[in-house]
Amino acid sequence: MQRYKCIISYDGTNFSGYQVQPNKRTIQSVIEAVLEKMHKGRHVRISGSGRTDAGVHAKAQVIHFESPLAIPTERWETALNTMLPEDIAVLSVEKVSDTFHSRFDASGKEYRYVLSLSKKRDPFSRNYTYHYPYSLDIAAIEEACKYLLGTHDFSSFCSARTDVEDKVRTIETIDVSCSGEQLTFRFIGNGFLYNMVRILVGTLIEVGSGKRVPEEIQEILKKKDRQFAGKTAPAQGLYLWNVLYDS
Amino acid sequence: MQRYKCIISYDGTNFSGYQVQPNKRTIQSVIEAVLEKMHKGRHVRISGSGRTDAGVHAKAQVIHFESPLAIPTERWETALNTMLPEDIAVLSVEKVSDTFHSRFDASGKEYRYVLSLSKKRDPFSRNYTYHYPYSLDIAAIEEACKYLLGTHDFSSFCSARTDVEDKVRTIETIDVSCSGEQLTFRFIGNGFLYNMVRILVGTLIEVGSGKRVPEEIQEILKKKDRQFAGKTAPAQGLYLWNVLYDS
Repeated sequence: MQRYKCIISYDGTNFSGYQVQPNKRTIQSVIEAVLEKMHKGRHVRISGSGRTDAGVHAKAQVIHFESPLAIPTERWETALNTMLPEDIAVLSVEKVSDTFHSRFDASGKEYRYVLSLSKKRDPFSRNYTYHYPYSLDIAAIEEACKYLLGTHDFSSFCSARTDVEDKVRTIETIDVSCSGEQLTFRFIGNGFLYNMVRILVGTLIEVGSGKRVPEEIQEILKKKDRQFAGKTAPAQGLYLWNVLYDS
Repeated sequence: MQRYKCIISYDGTNFSGYQVQPNKRTIQSVIEAVLEKMHKGRHVRISGSGRTDAGVHAKAQVIHFESPLAIPTERWETALNTMLPEDIAVLSVEKVSDTFHSRFDASGKEYRYVLSLSKKRDPFSRNYTYHYPYSLDIAAIEEACKYLLGTHDFSSFCSARTDVEDKVRTIETIDVSCSGEQLTFRFIGNGFLYNMVRILVGTLIEVGSGKRVPEEIQEILKKKDRQFAGKTAPAQGLYLWNVLYDS
């Protein structure tokens, strides 16, 4: 048996998220079906660095799996890509030790969230950005971001549908950049709770639109209660951009 | 009755092309269904500047239609966008005289064709570019383009499935530009035959890959026979970019 670490990218539009669900097309089930075919009907389980929801994209998700097949490392990428549908791509495959774990070994993650501020509808970005055709006060958003940086209990920014106990996480970087009519939020941290990035973005949009003042972020964090934060921003603007490992 | 000129944009991925076909989702049928609803069941026919095939996109297609409804011009855009699916957008609506015709009045068109030259598969561009992960000799392509410029009988670059008699067209501009791993062909001309841009691109790719020399373009034009040109490049790389009108 050899363990492989595999970086994959997917357009989440036509998937019911990452995790296997009965009768749903998910990232995990599509990849496991391909591996099963390669292994002549033997089920091969993949483990991901984390789940992504329906409609959420990945530029570089990390998974691992084990295989007894004597395929040279450099051939795995082509073999998988040949069998995978066009909305999932394998970007790299490498041999790792039996102790490597895509989720437990991850030291951090980068997520990006993309808004389109265009006044006009754009059919080409409907599945890849959140269309928000209103003006936003970027300076206010940036001020609010400062209160989110560092180590906090992010209970207020976590979906109630979660079973994680410890909701303390550290956000190292948040930056907001504008390119044309596109506004991109970049979050780097040691870990993110269920729906955390989407709730952060939804709340920051409420700050940018003047519905809240930046200082309110401190109050929201203190409450440790989801109902005090803003709306969950829609899935299609979110990208799991990178999974970080020490070394 | 008032005639309206309307600029629309669409992601062609989930359409069986522009023209109405029984039991198919087409641009024309989706827009006509919306207009029919707005006109309480009365059918309203739209006329486009030209058809686009299944999978082909439009950044700015032009259509016209007539309506007796007393809707202020500035409200038409919102009214239509509210009812249209997200993969079609109305960019503008303006009143025109009863003699305006989106197709007959067009003095020219701009098409673009986008190739992705990336060695890696990209799930996000699969429906929006033609993935061609091989090297291309751009200088050879540009030399070949020179032979295409001007007025020619383009019979060799026209699908056999056409009933147009006169296959003489004028191409004013062809340019080829590289941005990152994306190669974009831009064609401006007074008119384009059925599949003409896709056959031109398919042939230019054969020049760029060394399968043909640039001078062969002259021979292909002379033959006036489709079988002498290259393959038809796939639909998803093609964009109707602009329809030109005098004045």
